[in-house]
Amino acid sequence: MHRYRSHTCGDLRETHVGETVRLSGWVHRVRDHGGLLFIDLRDHYGITQCVIDPDSAAFKLAETVRSEWCIRIDGEVKKRTDATINADIATGAVEIFIRDMEILGAAKELPLPVFGDQDYPEEIRLKYRYLDLRREKLHNNIMLRSKVVADLRSRMWDIGFTEFQTPIITASSPEGARDFLVPSRLHPGKFYALPQAPQQFKQLIMVSGFDRYFQIAPCFRDEDPRADRSPTDFYQLDLEMSYVEQQDIFDTVEPVLAGCFEKFGGGRPVNRNWPQIAYRDAMLWYGSDKPDLRNPIKMQVVSEHFAGSGFAIFAKLLEQDGNEVRAIPAPTGGSRKFCDRMNKFAQDEGLPGMGYIFWRKADDGSMEAAGPLAKNIGPERTEAIRVQLGLDVGDAAFFLGGKPKSFEKIAGKARNIIGEELGLTDLNRFEFAWIVDFPIYEQDPDTGKIDFEHNPFSMPQGGLDALNGDPLEVKGFQYDLACNGHELVSGAIRNHKPEIMYRAFEIAGYPNSEVDKRFGGMVNAFQYGAPPHGGCAAGIDRIVMLLANEANIREVIMFPMNQKAEDLMMGAPSEPTTEQLRELHLRLNLPSA
Amino acid sequence: MHRYRSHTCGDLRETHVGETVRLSGWVHRVRDHGGLLFIDLRDHYGITQCVIDPDSAAFKLAETVRSEWCIRIDGEVKKRTDATINADIATGAVEIFIRDMEILGAAKELPLPVFGDQDYPEEIRLKYRYLDLRREKLHNNIMLRSKVVADLRSRMWDIGFTEFQTPIITASSPEGARDFLVPSRLHPGKFYALPQAPQQFKQLIMVSGFDRYFQIAPCFRDEDPRADRSPTDFYQLDLEMSYVEQQDIFDTVEPVLAGCFEKFGGGRPVNRNWPQIAYRDAMLWYGSDKPDLRNPIKMQVVSEHFAGSGFAIFAKLLEQDGNEVRAIPAPTGGSRKFCDRMNKFAQDEGLPGMGYIFWRKADDGSMEAAGPLAKNIGPERTEAIRVQLGLDVGDAAFFLGGKPKSFEKIAGKARNIIGEELGLTDLNRFEFAWIVDFPIYEQDPDTGKIDFEHNPFSMPQGGLDALNGDPLEVKGFQYDLACNGHELVSGAIRNHKPEIMYRAFEIAGYPNSEVDKRFGGMVNAFQYGAPPHGGCAAGIDRIVMLLANEANIREVIMFPMNQKAEDLMMGAPSEPTTEQLRELHLRLNLPSA
Repeated sequence: MHRYRSHTCGDLRETHVGETVRLSGWVHRVRDHGGLLFIDLRDHYGITQCVIDPDSAAFKLAETVRSEWCIRIDGEVKKRTDATINADIATGAVEIFIRDMEILGAAKELPLPVFGDQDYPEEIRLKYRYLDLRREKLHNNIMLRSKVVADLRSRMWDIGFTEFQTPIITASSPEGARDFLVPSRLHPGKFYALPQAPQQFKQLIMVSGFDRYFQIAPCFRDEDPRADRSPTDFYQLDLEMSYVEQQDIFDTVEPVLAGCFEKFGGGRPVNRNWPQIAYRDAMLWYGSDKPDLRNPIKMQVVSEHFAGSGFAIFAKLLEQDGNEVRAIPAPTGGSRKFCDRMNKFAQDEGLPGMGYIFWRKADDGSMEAAGPLAKNIGPERTEAIRVQLGLDVGDAAFFLGGKPKSFEKIAGKARNIIGEELGLTDLNRFEFAWIVDFPIYEQDPDTGKIDFEHNPFSMPQGGLDALNGDPLEVKGFQYDLACNGHELVSGAIRNHKPEIMYRAFEIAGYPNSEVDKRFGGMVNAFQYGAPPHGGCAAGIDRIVMLLANEANIREVIMFPMNQKAEDLMMGAPSEPTTEQLRELHLRLNLPSA
Repeated sequence: MHRYRSHTCGDLRETHVGETVRLSGWVHRVRDHGGLLFIDLRDHYGITQCVIDPDSAAFKLAETVRSEWCIRIDGEVKKRTDATINADIATGAVEIFIRDMEILGAAKELPLPVFGDQDYPEEIRLKYRYLDLRREKLHNNIMLRSKVVADLRSRMWDIGFTEFQTPIITASSPEGARDFLVPSRLHPGKFYALPQAPQQFKQLIMVSGFDRYFQIAPCFRDEDPRADRSPTDFYQLDLEMSYVEQQDIFDTVEPVLAGCFEKFGGGRPVNRNWPQIAYRDAMLWYGSDKPDLRNPIKMQVVSEHFAGSGFAIFAKLLEQDGNEVRAIPAPTGGSRKFCDRMNKFAQDEGLPGMGYIFWRKADDGSMEAAGPLAKNIGPERTEAIRVQLGLDVGDAAFFLGGKPKSFEKIAGKARNIIGEELGLTDLNRFEFAWIVDFPIYEQDPDTGKIDFEHNPFSMPQGGLDALNGDPLEVKGFQYDLACNGHELVSGAIRNHKPEIMYRAFEIAGYPNSEVDKRFGGMVNAFQYGAPPHGGCAAGIDRIVMLLANEANIREVIMFPMNQKAEDLMMGAPSEPTTEQLRELHLRLNLPSA
């Protein structure tokens, strides 16, 4: 017989009754039932109930074991009585009568239990991650993550992509976030950087003549932590294709991600033929460039109904160019209590408030529009608004006015709250949409300085000609994929023409010499026969978060850092030795206490 | 029609004749044949011959294109005449008559050509890697690598392993090599380290209750470069299993690697039922712990024939304890010229020389032993040696004496040279063997200090009892896999018992407090129910080198560093900005000029 096990703890069935078996695993639970000891033995594959009675030679030893000790047992498989069959576990028809037992690894008193669902402070969970990982939910999340990654890989190979590994210790590649640096021992005073993404390498792979690249790629950004972002390293499904247009990327990505979500989404429906929404429309309709489309609410411009109306605040606003009034329709939100709560939300967000109208049944059975706004603008305008928004008795609408940039994001948040509080948002589904036509540039409202809105590698729509017009009007072949309010994918058709690239950077204030310095590897390569190409990257951690229905990225990472970018289990970061600093030609420059 | 292509450059066959097609790719070669221009158009998938005549509207443009320009062409598929069919390429039955052409990306004058096999200096090749990668051989190597990695992954999943990603920015984990450090911005004066291997994490995964882990894992060692080692990052197929003994690991790994080598080895035979050779035997027989078993030569101890013989040097040596005389048999090496050359090799390696005997046919047709050694020890002893070594007319034997440690490695080198020069080594096959029973400790010959021979994580054979005897006699459950003279795999059954681990470290001079400091994360975990476990790691780069028949690791890596750990294409490492240093709380400490 094998030294440790003839079967796993998930294997045994009624067909094994009578066999002598050997199992190894962890003591999930010990129960003392009138002399008999019941030990639920757990391994990666399942749980098997084991029993030992005082006549067994191993009983004395069995009495010493505690939860989470690692043990081996030998024993005979017996059928359980009908009354004790446990249909909840795969091995529930049988139990093992223990004849022999060996302690493989004892355990000290546990800082957190494995059995049960009790919540524990995250710092304890992270410090004893190896115990936390034995718990069913986290164990399942991590297995899900592995299966999702394998599934994405397999889908990519199936459609003709090849996975290539790009360097991890490489050059600094300024892309918006902060680099992690690695001091060089062999080159005093010089540093490598960890890649924020394999962006330049994947473009170089295209220039090298490989046609379809992908990689489950580790990425590194020295960023301040947030719930859905790891403070150090994270993974992307990174892909790039040559000789393609934007629609080719969409046609490639949709079946891969939709297939994966259908397979691992627990039966939640996944929309297909993903809509393409222009960035400007997304901001108007949803107040977000990563809208949650499970929420049916679509905002609308209603300026015409307020221009010259009796509601002086809006009427006056609308006399100025660039101002608008937009409405958030709120079906079933027609109560003063709800409307006041939403108004308060807007005030908490720093706006003067959010005007509203709601429609109710009057005592005479007719429809009545309520709220101060309705009074101010009168019944005709109120009715026109109701018709435009398609609302009815029991519904409400909220109004925001001013420069769209000043209230769009708050409107988006309000839309989310309204959708959730009124139960309009169907939480039990996945709704994907491409957001397209992002502007290439944005302007700093204070300094007037023009800078890249996303990253500087996208091809402007209209090419060089477009760049010679108003830069703020130039859109890029640049896109995001939104799903349930998260940005899952970001990508672009790249700017592969050196002359257009230099011009694009010039507009953002970078002279050619600066481009050569920062992106020299890639810009050089573009001068030796670069193919048109494009691609995108999908965040693995966020995909798994959505599939596992978790709100915190640390629930889908095996060994995550805490929010302060510390590994409490391994003790990272830590102080270097003097010898290490000397070898790296460094001295500390600590802030004075 | 698609914006860039209706087909790839590898698609078109006789069945397409008459169709109008669109192709995009690189100009592989342009030839001018009496007015007609022939353009071989290349992409990732193949090469297609295109023709344009002066009547075509695109002729003027076509005359401007040069090698490695990236172009799109439209044209009609025509059948080639029988005389011009090219059976060497898949599209060789057809050619395209070009009607329209577009320059997608022009190229400056090339620093190295893509067409042809001419060798170029490595620095040029690395600086313009994107051009070098377009060359057929390198392109194929990189594709091979990707396929090998995917194949290994798929085999691991098939046998029940799950791939988990372990942290890359983590704690320093001293394991023999030097860490790359990453300064922390958020924690002044502290550093992360990049993992030399996921050793501790994979052991923690076992303690976390996952049963069978693998990962195509990036590893980082700040080492001085060599031909078969990357100076920065490299990849391992890393695996670990719970509840196993050494033989379980062997039974797991052999089908995976043998299967992969059979699939991608170009038909070269792969041995099965891999022999297990004790470390001591490997050193005796082959002078190496990574022997090349394609070479049939097996060294032997021949001390008895020299003890008390007329060859005073060896006779005297053998009077001292621990000295030995060993023979390297060299079938077909029986010429004075060859023997002298090998003797010279030994002298060049720092030995006084290598005595030899060779056997030839005397003028009377009988066998005659030649060489000074034969004369010194006389015909009887010479004949006994010949019989022991199984040699005959035309063969030779070389002799080395002293403490085995002083000459074993040189004997191993000599064995390689003899095998290759005499054509005894069958280069056209793969011969694997497990090397087992490595000693846990080694003793510094000068200081007498005892230290770990491999890594400190292996379970000593005999457990705690063994550690209480002579440490230099303790063997570990620790093994390497040798293939064709390379170490492809290294692994061990781990020491999962804290008390044995502390004792093992104590012998090597580390107090418990030091163990807790260096390996605290793992040693803590072992106190909460650790399962017996073991595993190994296989070097991906070396596997691909062997399969691709390359002697240099840079031929199987997409974007390698040069031998000075520099990336000439991207310009890494580079100088940090003052701002970066300030944020990282560092000051440079440069050697004075």
